[in-house]
Amino acid sequence: MDELILHEDRRSGNCYKIRLTAALLDLPLERKDYDILAGETRTPEFLAKVNSNGRIPVLQVGNRFLPESNAACFYLCEGTELVPADRFARADILRWMFFEQYNHEPNIATLRFWLAYLGEAHLTEQQRAQIPAKRIAGEDALTLMDRHLAGRDWFVGDTCTLADISLYAYTHVAEAGGFRLHDCGNVCEWLKRVAALPGYVAMD
Amino acid sequence: MDELILHEDRRSGNCYKIRLTAALLDLPLERKDYDILAGETRTPEFLAKVNSNGRIPVLQVGNRFLPESNAACFYLCEGTELVPADRFARADILRWMFFEQYNHEPNIATLRFWLAYLGEAHLTEQQRAQIPAKRIAGEDALTLMDRHLAGRDWFVGDTCTLADISLYAYTHVAEAGGFRLHDCGNVCEWLKRVAALPGYVAMD
Repeated sequence: MDELILHEDRRSGNCYKIRLTAALLDLPLERKDYDILAGETRTPEFLAKVNSNGRIPVLQVGNRFLPESNAACFYLCEGTELVPADRFARADILRWMFFEQYNHEPNIATLRFWLAYLGEAHLTEQQRAQIPAKRIAGEDALTLMDRHLAGRDWFVGDTCTLADISLYAYTHVAEAGGFRLHDCGNVCEWLKRVAALPGYVAMD
Repeated sequence: MDELILHEDRRSGNCYKIRLTAALLDLPLERKDYDILAGETRTPEFLAKVNSNGRIPVLQVGNRFLPESNAACFYLCEGTELVPADRFARADILRWMFFEQYNHEPNIATLRFWLAYLGEAHLTEQQRAQIPAKRIAGEDALTLMDRHLAGRDWFVGDTCTLADISLYAYTHVAEAGGFRLHDCGNVCEWLKRVAALPGYVAMD
């Protein structure tokens, strides 16, 4: 495999996802840090060379650039036990990864970013107005996950897959966004299972 | 392949994505219609059996259920020319599909739904307050697509892939959400290329 460089902000769960995936697969990963709050991913050079969407993470593979955390993780996992060969299982893993980016991240990660990094006092009126809806939608996502995990150890099949890694990243820090995890007992047990995986690394 | 049934609302671009994919691949697809405005995807039966997330589309494969439009499309396309075998290209296709669900659909599809189906007069105050931000974010997504298509015919590689199908669904009806496509000349040419594909079917 070509040399791998992760363009990241260490506070981002989307970046951590890729770092955790690489660690579980024992893949060497160089890291290049950016401060998103200082606009370092919106410079003309970053937009022209790394990601026209002005976002991290981006996985650099040799001289090619791959934005979108879940796409980058999928790239790393193809052919490994984290993305099994069964056609339906592979699609089912993607199902949870799209759920993560649509129902989970925009609510749970965004409230964490707003409340723990920007600070409630610095939010715009429009951001503040969205908090209640994002709170409910984030709680709904956690409840759905908790129900799915009733009687199962992992999201797809009976081993850890990329679906678990993808959902773990922002779930395990959801309390920084004001979410209560102790109401979700199955989720809490599953978080412990992920953290016990051989090769597991914690978020910085 | 097991019998395929698409659980859908015919007005949804996410559902159309799967129908277009199946048509391009000449796969038979049974259709079961729901009215999302009448709450038909929030019934206890739907939630228990079809999708705990209360959303369409869901692709039924024999007696298994696969929510999330892009995951369902990926399932149909594995092993076909719409998802090539090259590892980086596959991940790059997913990159655009995650972009579609994160940067494109929540802005362009949501404004289309709010303005063309719910009607501006029926929006809540909070929905109305989000229109300007969604307008800008949707325009940004279209501009990014237009720049990417400068000098290229398709989003990934030099043939049509699932990345194109995924992005086509809500782009070609973006004007119903109040977006101006004629400023995006490359996007307009690309829309024509998709509509000229053998097997193409229009949205109902």
